[in-house]
Amino acid sequence: MKLLRVGPVGQERPVVMDDAGNLRDIGEPDIDGAFLASGGVARVREALERDELPVVVGEGLRVGPPIARPGKIVCIGLNYSDHAAESGADVPAEPVVFMKAANTMVGPYDEVLVPRGSVKTDWEVELAIVIGRRARYLDSREEALDAVAGYAVSNDVSEREFQLERGGQWDKGKSCETFNPLGPWLVTADEITDPQSLALRLWVNGELRQNGDTKNMIFDVAEIVRYLSQFMVLEPGDVINTGTPAGVAMGMPGQPYLRAGDVMELEIEGLGRQRQTVGQA
Amino acid sequence: MKLLRVGPVGQERPVVMDDAGNLRDIGEPDIDGAFLASGGVARVREALERDELPVVVGEGLRVGPPIARPGKIVCIGLNYSDHAAESGADVPAEPVVFMKAANTMVGPYDEVLVPRGSVKTDWEVELAIVIGRRARYLDSREEALDAVAGYAVSNDVSEREFQLERGGQWDKGKSCETFNPLGPWLVTADEITDPQSLALRLWVNGELRQNGDTKNMIFDVAEIVRYLSQFMVLEPGDVINTGTPAGVAMGMPGQPYLRAGDVMELEIEGLGRQRQTVGQA
Repeated sequence: MKLLRVGPVGQERPVVMDDAGNLRDIGEPDIDGAFLASGGVARVREALERDELPVVVGEGLRVGPPIARPGKIVCIGLNYSDHAAESGADVPAEPVVFMKAANTMVGPYDEVLVPRGSVKTDWEVELAIVIGRRARYLDSREEALDAVAGYAVSNDVSEREFQLERGGQWDKGKSCETFNPLGPWLVTADEITDPQSLALRLWVNGELRQNGDTKNMIFDVAEIVRYLSQFMVLEPGDVINTGTPAGVAMGMPGQPYLRAGDVMELEIEGLGRQRQTVGQA
Repeated sequence: MKLLRVGPVGQERPVVMDDAGNLRDIGEPDIDGAFLASGGVARVREALERDELPVVVGEGLRVGPPIARPGKIVCIGLNYSDHAAESGADVPAEPVVFMKAANTMVGPYDEVLVPRGSVKTDWEVELAIVIGRRARYLDSREEALDAVAGYAVSNDVSEREFQLERGGQWDKGKSCETFNPLGPWLVTADEITDPQSLALRLWVNGELRQNGDTKNMIFDVAEIVRYLSQFMVLEPGDVINTGTPAGVAMGMPGQPYLRAGDVMELEIEGLGRQRQTVGQA
């Protein structure tokens, strides 16, 4: 299923897209950790099969991020060898873990703001995992995949000077306002037969900049979730950005960082497409 | 005022401690971002002055963290020169910023768990700032202090191997289960005349290990809040750990890291005292 949230910022209404492309009210307060933890996905699936969900007129409605109030956004760094190489970094021996403030999350078509004082704002198309159940000290890849509610397109927007030249830890360049467009959909895990075989692409002003495949991840989805659960408790609704392939501005000749007016488009096979115009904070 | 939350995990009830040491129901759903953003502190103060708040029998009740569901926990690293020296690090030219998963927060007397596979679990007494209003791109120290709702004692528990020897970013050693005891109280900012003149101490098994003063911070409270607001949007209820003075296990001869059965006690002038027994995850 494709779950999404439509409406003005802070007043999004949770809906599901049916096979005909209609939006239907899911009859739940929101798509959030409580919804996922309480079996909300199964409830919506059954109600949809029984044709009990009323159609919502989606025309002209803003699309918000498909999950409300994640408890945390965890990110995996340098998880594609071609991106590690363009960053001048070694391929990591185990996952590199950092965090992004959860209030960076915006909708897939919302404006992305270049922070004040920034000259190195960059893009990163990534497969996002949304956690569906509480997970700590998982023993196996199977348990890890069982903890995944679904997947979404994520843009892990990054300010490279703040991240790398301003005092050591990456989080400073990852947590700026609007820095995590997510969506349009939370696609439930049952629809993604193999999360390690998804093409992912990003264009800036119509030019293809990133063109990767999740098969090239160094640490795959099951390993990322299993690994993270050794270091923190994952909760329903948490979001994990799984790393970006090569093609970011930092690694390109001339380093064409984002400026106000630029347009980013992102797409992952089966997970839909985003489009953001860049503004100035 | 001293605001706190008492009761079982996840069912804490918000109360205020009056001048006689009685706990009184504050007549609000919780002490959280919404409470702080909507002028909750002023409402409770007025109701307390009018003697409208009923006494709660606190005897035997667990004390939870004094703020519910923070959107994020931001931490400042190496913010005391003596701790930078014991860590073998230079004094930073600007604040070092990292994050801790918000679900690490536990009550001030709750058990702290050594993570599975850990041999380097360490303590850090810190002054925590609780944000009271939304803050972005603050211009001045005055605006920064206006954004502070209050202060609390924080233990920024850290696993040094995970933090420093397992792939580069510190967050991996900062986000383990139970790694952020907070409280007992959220002391409102009006009660702390000078946040830069507070003694802070930590004992392990009765031995004094940290004995510092917030006057020795490299970046003070006003500068930390102003600075962070240039890189992220601070929200009501967010918690900022402002760094630890010297005396952590990592910097001591023999590096006496925490083991199950150890007892930590922490105290900051005017902000109360914590006590945690260490267990094994």
